[in-house]
Amino acid sequence: MKETRICIIGGGGRLWAIQFMKDLAYNTMTHGTLVLYDIDKQAAHNNVAVAERVFKVNNSEGRFRVIAEDVIGKALAGCDLVIISIEPGKTACRYGDLVLPEEYGILQSVGDTTGPGGIMRARRAVPLFFEIAEQVKQYCPDAWVINYTNPMTLCTAALYKAFPGIKALGCCHEVFHTQNFLAEKVAKWFDVPVPDRREIKIDLTGVNHFTFVTKAYWKTHDLMPKLIELAQDSATFSDGTAVAKQRLEEENWFDCDQKIALSFLRDFGALGAAGDRHLAEFVPWFLTSDENLHTYGVIRTPYSWRERTAKEKRERVFKDEDLKAELSDEEGVDIMRCLMGDKSMVTNINRPNEGQISYLPKGRIVESNGVLSEDSIRPIVASDPPLAIQNLIKQVSDVQEMTLEAIWNKDDELLFAAFLSDPLMNLSRDKARELFEKMLVASDLKY
Amino acid sequence: MKETRICIIGGGGRLWAIQFMKDLAYNTMTHGTLVLYDIDKQAAHNNVAVAERVFKVNNSEGRFRVIAEDVIGKALAGCDLVIISIEPGKTACRYGDLVLPEEYGILQSVGDTTGPGGIMRARRAVPLFFEIAEQVKQYCPDAWVINYTNPMTLCTAALYKAFPGIKALGCCHEVFHTQNFLAEKVAKWFDVPVPDRREIKIDLTGVNHFTFVTKAYWKTHDLMPKLIELAQDSATFSDGTAVAKQRLEEENWFDCDQKIALSFLRDFGALGAAGDRHLAEFVPWFLTSDENLHTYGVIRTPYSWRERTAKEKRERVFKDEDLKAELSDEEGVDIMRCLMGDKSMVTNINRPNEGQISYLPKGRIVESNGVLSEDSIRPIVASDPPLAIQNLIKQVSDVQEMTLEAIWNKDDELLFAAFLSDPLMNLSRDKARELFEKMLVASDLKY
Amino acid sequence: MKETRICIIGGGGRLWAIQFMKDLAYNTMTHGTLVLYDIDKQAAHNNVAVAERVFKVNNSEGRFRVIAEDVIGKALAGCDLVIISIEPGKTACRYGDLVLPEEYGILQSVGDTTGPGGIMRARRAVPLFFEIAEQVKQYCPDAWVINYTNPMTLCTAALYKAFPGIKALGCCHEVFHTQNFLAEKVAKWFDVPVPDRREIKIDLTGVNHFTFVTKAYWKTHDLMPKLIELAQDSATFSDGTAVAKQRLEEENWFDCDQKIALSFLRDFGALGAAGDRHLAEFVPWFLTSDENLHTYGVIRTPYSWRERTAKEKRERVFKDEDLKAELSDEEGVDIMRCLMGDKSMVTNINRPNEGQISYLPKGRIVESNGVLSEDSIRPIVASDPPLAIQNLIKQVSDVQEMTLEAIWNKDDELLFAAFLSDPLMNLSRDKARELFEKMLVASDLKY
Amino acid sequence: MKETRICIIGGGGRLWAIQFMKDLAYNTMTHGTLVLYDIDKQAAHNNVAVAERVFKVNNSEGRFRVIAEDVIGKALAGCDLVIISIEPGKTACRYGDLVLPEEYGILQSVGDTTGPGGIMRARRAVPLFFEIAEQVKQYCPDAWVINYTNPMTLCTAALYKAFPGIKALGCCHEVFHTQNFLAEKVAKWFDVPVPDRREIKIDLTGVNHFTFVTKAYWKTHDLMPKLIELAQDSATFSDGTAVAKQRLEEENWFDCDQKIALSFLRDFGALGAAGDRHLAEFVPWFLTSDENLHTYGVIRTPYSWRERTAKEKRERVFKDEDLKAELSDEEGVDIMRCLMGDKSMVTNINRPNEGQISYLPKGRIVESNGVLSEDSIRPIVASDPPLAIQNLIKQVSDVQEMTLEAIWNKDDELLFAAFLSDPLMNLSRDKARELFEKMLVASDLKY
Repeated sequence: MKETRICIIGGGGRLWAIQFMKDLAYNTMTHGTLVLYDIDKQAAHNNVAVAERVFKVNNSEGRFRVIAEDVIGKALAGCDLVIISIEPGKTACRYGDLVLPEEYGILQSVGDTTGPGGIMRARRAVPLFFEIAEQVKQYCPDAWVINYTNPMTLCTAALYKAFPGIKALGCCHEVFHTQNFLAEKVAKWFDVPVPDRREIKIDLTGVNHFTFVTKAYWKTHDLMPKLIELAQDSATFSDGTAVAKQRLEEENWFDCDQKIALSFLRDFGALGAAGDRHLAEFVPWFLTSDENLHTYGVIRTPYSWRERTAKEKRERVFKDEDLKAELSDEEGVDIMRCLMGDKSMVTNINRPNEGQISYLPKGRIVESNGVLSEDSIRPIVASDPPLAIQNLIKQVSDVQEMTLEAIWNKDDELLFAAFLSDPLMNLSRDKARELFEKMLVASDLKY
Repeated sequence: MKETRICIIGGGGRLWAIQFMKDLAYNTMTHGTLVLYDIDKQAAHNNVAVAERVFKVNNSEGRFRVIAEDVIGKALAGCDLVIISIEPGKTACRYGDLVLPEEYGILQSVGDTTGPGGIMRARRAVPLFFEIAEQVKQYCPDAWVINYTNPMTLCTAALYKAFPGIKALGCCHEVFHTQNFLAEKVAKWFDVPVPDRREIKIDLTGVNHFTFVTKAYWKTHDLMPKLIELAQDSATFSDGTAVAKQRLEEENWFDCDQKIALSFLRDFGALGAAGDRHLAEFVPWFLTSDENLHTYGVIRTPYSWRERTAKEKRERVFKDEDLKAELSDEEGVDIMRCLMGDKSMVTNINRPNEGQISYLPKGRIVESNGVLSEDSIRPIVASDPPLAIQNLIKQVSDVQEMTLEAIWNKDDELLFAAFLSDPLMNLSRDKARELFEKMLVASDLKY
Repeated sequence: MKETRICIIGGGGRLWAIQFMKDLAYNTMTHGTLVLYDIDKQAAHNNVAVAERVFKVNNSEGRFRVIAEDVIGKALAGCDLVIISIEPGKTACRYGDLVLPEEYGILQSVGDTTGPGGIMRARRAVPLFFEIAEQVKQYCPDAWVINYTNPMTLCTAALYKAFPGIKALGCCHEVFHTQNFLAEKVAKWFDVPVPDRREIKIDLTGVNHFTFVTKAYWKTHDLMPKLIELAQDSATFSDGTAVAKQRLEEENWFDCDQKIALSFLRDFGALGAAGDRHLAEFVPWFLTSDENLHTYGVIRTPYSWRERTAKEKRERVFKDEDLKAELSDEEGVDIMRCLMGDKSMVTNINRPNEGQISYLPKGRIVESNGVLSEDSIRPIVASDPPLAIQNLIKQVSDVQEMTLEAIWNKDDELLFAAFLSDPLMNLSRDKARELFEKMLVASDLKY
Repeated sequence: MKETRICIIGGGGRLWAIQFMKDLAYNTMTHGTLVLYDIDKQAAHNNVAVAERVFKVNNSEGRFRVIAEDVIGKALAGCDLVIISIEPGKTACRYGDLVLPEEYGILQSVGDTTGPGGIMRARRAVPLFFEIAEQVKQYCPDAWVINYTNPMTLCTAALYKAFPGIKALGCCHEVFHTQNFLAEKVAKWFDVPVPDRREIKIDLTGVNHFTFVTKAYWKTHDLMPKLIELAQDSATFSDGTAVAKQRLEEENWFDCDQKIALSFLRDFGALGAAGDRHLAEFVPWFLTSDENLHTYGVIRTPYSWRERTAKEKRERVFKDEDLKAELSDEEGVDIMRCLMGDKSMVTNINRPNEGQISYLPKGRIVESNGVLSEDSIRPIVASDPPLAIQNLIKQVSDVQEMTLEAIWNKDDELLFAAFLSDPLMNLSRDKARELFEKMLVASDLKY
């Protein structure tokens, strides 16, 4: 593979950035330069040493020169690949995202993608992505850009809005979880060991965190009939409250049994392809109360935990075994290899709609399968889901478009139109306005 | 004008049928045969005498031969025009439409077009329209068909579903009320007498009862800037609770001040073009409680009143002065004159989308302006409303399409998907299911 | 009607400009200021006196103040309406348009809209319209602009390309001739006096000079069945050579019997709605030789005549009776009255596609019916013609789009792609290139 | 791989059928039953023995049971895969396809896909495919159907017209030749051995035999800049007449230097992706004369040779070495393996448009890349070619659609509209009609 210059924006991070380094170390055919950039300059500089330890621990010394750069232009200049994984605003901002809506009776299980919290987070994040796109345009217009930051759809859309010629995509592992869920079902249904998730071939359609499986195969086996049977079995939806309570106790915020994913299959004809905590936020029927949510075995991630872990992450000291690389479930380095001409791959990606999603306008950022190869991503036309699913996705995508336009034009009145139109909004117009204004203040958002 | 054979389906009715006769009497250039058909055969026969009185009272004896027919095929045979204005199911069915949802916390101000009540009413009405379309296909395939029955969009769509070659349109006077509202504003703004509503030229877009004005002119005056000013003035939205209370007392269910119509203009950029009681039902922000609704001066029409007036209507005895014709606000006879080649007119109509509404699929029944002339209706391309409005309308139209498909295929599971997706649905999935099944039973709906 | 300031670009002309003045004089409710602008400044100044005579001869003195302006910005400033009727380049340029292609065996009957001649004329005209649009944007952005210059579609498209916010339309009387042709048929078929062309209601679709009638009514009579009968009668296509010879002798270049218009109806299912000399140029089957063309009774307008009459026009001295106004077949002043709020009208216009033509991309300049009223033109959705007709129109529109893009980008290689793709092109690629380069030289076209 | 039952319609053939057997023998993981069906029953029975020899010669005895069936229903029953490779009508029919148009001055280099000959061949072939589709629907509705018969697009479209639920695709090796051409260029440009064509990754768009390459990569090298350079070098288009003469002498009808393919790149911006003899037939600029065609080194395949070789093919006696299998350039067996769940592949296929080609209506049969895997073909969204190329392809696709509709409705008047609209048509309307009627007679085509 050819020598690659990579820049990580958010290179001072303690999670994504480190994971990416480990993946690089694991993939022995990669080599080149790794540039760490972070608005927290010290964090980026600190991570240089971590990176060097990662390569050393994994017997990969010398493959990558690692440097930190304080100026974004210098960091980007000459890059072949840019990775973006940042936290837009301080963790404290998420107080407004999560707690204020709750005070008005709007519950959110994650609050970083959709709902009032997702919209406010977008308002903090999107201008940063406009700025990054401008810098990419100036310093490395031919580089490929991979975004991992939420709200995924809007951050990726922001890159294209500010620099339409950008070569960008958004990556997310939620769909992999659905494949893992299906792999476990395969093991059970066919009495075989759990296959690798990559053996589960799916056709999918939607927007990030609100994506749906319309077809699923394992080898020559069509999995949909068995899934539909499962969704029509009332036992599948047995009360999950006890499970939810235990998850609360154990702080297993991310676990789920895909009951909400299956509920979409039951009622609307396609399987949700994200964790239940994400799926629940895009429609009004699951977050009417914690009690209701718990019946699906799903719990909300609380602000207090986010606050606590953010601090822990910052202070974390890595042991050598933390830095030991193995085959991960992240595809960033695989994607890099494809785009640099080393191989070809079909996987799910977030990209501007060129026709792969028939029911959304061209240009919208959508999630579906694509073929990645030398310097090229070509979307695969997704099968149409039932109209009921299209309807739900269109609403979400329209609210995203309104949010993007509002932030681009610095128009908080249009942002309020998006806010009101969000599927989680269950307040009277005037209460909604009151909440909106409080959230703007809490986020300290001014143009 | 050429001799015209007209059939009124619902010809035994005491309101629409009589009004239409009066309009025929008023328009002296019309002549021909008027056939009354009703599933209540006696009512149709009784109305023959009323019709004769109408023509007599208005010095129009002899222009129309009036007959009642008991068999629909005989009633339709040879007709040039078919008018449909029926009540789908007994008034008692509306108990289930209105009261059951209320028990679950879903308030509806009208409940005949959208919301849980509208969907159940559609499930009663739509099969009747499939049947009527079949009869038209067999007995008078070239006749023009005007539907006045609610849910307007779905009943008209049902005609096209069962007989794609039908020449049908839906007519509704809600938009005229918006023109009247604007005419009154014109009087105030320009210090002139209130002009006729036909002098208010508007561009409009949407689906019936959820239509929006994007442009409005009176003579050379663009009214939009003044309307926007009005919508941005907080005085416009002063508390209407006292007004609402009075309307409740006086049983003025239909009155409104267009505060909700203006609220759409304020928040979303286009003026609602229907009565507030209709507009309120298509979104979640106004019917969160009666208190909230009353702040807009709007009240809900109660089931008890419907029950009482249905009885009164049936028992009504017409006095001569009740039958005296004058220029009415209904356009049925004007439309008939256009289609029969007597004149040409631009007005708002409900028709299959041929491209007049850019943001909805072709074929959906939409409301916008059209040109009516000899044997022809050509839609006028509506200006696009802001995306926020498009998003709201698309949801409504998709739910309507799902409802139509469900009823066509006798698929109550798909009907439940529509039921869940209705913008008024604020229940948990399981509560929604419970309500759905109760409403099916209450409507005594079986395939 | 309100006072109107009108600017004629090409105000020194001896044909259109004078006709427009006569129409103004005829319409007694108009008044205001008429500004004449022409790149031939003296011609504009000379026409001031002619204008004054026009108003005097027609007893309309004082209704319009007439002035000439030498600077376009001054001419446009404050205008409500701008009329454009210019000759792009000297008459001598048409030598290259017409005679050079003929030397290569490409015959053109008009050569100002399509074919090699039309493309070269566009290359001269379109930059002038870019410039005019820029001036309108600067000096009177809210004015309505009516273009009469050929190539109509491309000149109007050029206005929108350079100033997307412009309020422009293109007007052409070719469709009126089709209405007159139908009016004469009506007289014959129904044994009545020839009705006014406005009584013939047609639905039409296409691009200027290549427009098609899909429906035609006179009062309550559908004319299509009779037209189809006519097109299927072989007598309709009896040899027109003798007629053509006589027309040649009498220099009746513009006369025709609509045999080519009817030939489209016979073979493709829709009636051509322009003079045969225009229709013939958009397809390869009629101009294979003069002998072939003459069988339809159609002759080509020769360059020599154009040269001679241009001179005569310039030198023409008007007598009072030449300036006497009567009801003309031009609609410019009627359109002005509509847009200024004085009345409303349905007529055929050239406008950007907003959905009125389903088979062409949005934004293309298309010809179909529209409703004109106060400050507003709303297109009417045209009925779809048969696919065979759509296919022919799409080719023409695509070649126009390529031509526009080529001129906008000053890209003669793309212009050659358009040149090759024109339906009249029957040469080998290399001969086509040779002709293309000669024509560029003949037109003295350089960027 | 699972056991597969395959039926070859045209199983008595001496070319395709034998090649497919060899490919089956070469691919050692395939096994099952091979059913030969042919309207020439004896030929199918004779080929059973040939098939057995093929498997024996290649040490594959026993993998496939080979049988001949005389009744199509019995042949299809229970099949997983159906291969169609037939000759529609006797070779003598091609006299009318090729020689009659030539008498009117319309030259065709192949005459089996487009042009007057292609349309008449379609009229013979398409009804056979309607019939095959009906049989598939009845006897093996879940089977995959691969068509190899020309006109490819129309035969495949006919399958979907008669049985919309069919799982069919069309396969053609013309694009492989373009990849081979590029592979040879790669060898020259990069001074490497000629790579396998599968290493040349291309993005392509169009309809069969008129397909275009918009992007081409070899490893990390973008080939388009070098190709454009080649197309802009006048040496590339040096006179090929001498080469053409030699090819005529040697009867090398199929050889070409892709000069016409490159001429499209030069003038229109995308590389033709089929042999020049095919590309030349879809536009009017190359077949104006044999002299013109020869300058590109391309010659026409004469009817006399077709007649002679058809006879030779029928009489051919296979030697063992003729039946020896090796890796072929055909992909039929590879595609079968994908669809049966044995592997996954990206390749070019002919399929209904689901959005992969943005500029053609949904449902049209188009050629572009797709992903083939278990029981699934998903199209990849093709990059848009320049508008000039889109315009050419749209014309061709529209003429195909008209042809299909005409044959479906047995409407020779609509077929004539298609005939007139073909890009090779350069006759006057009346001469075209004369030729059309002669060709109908020559083909002995009656409904």
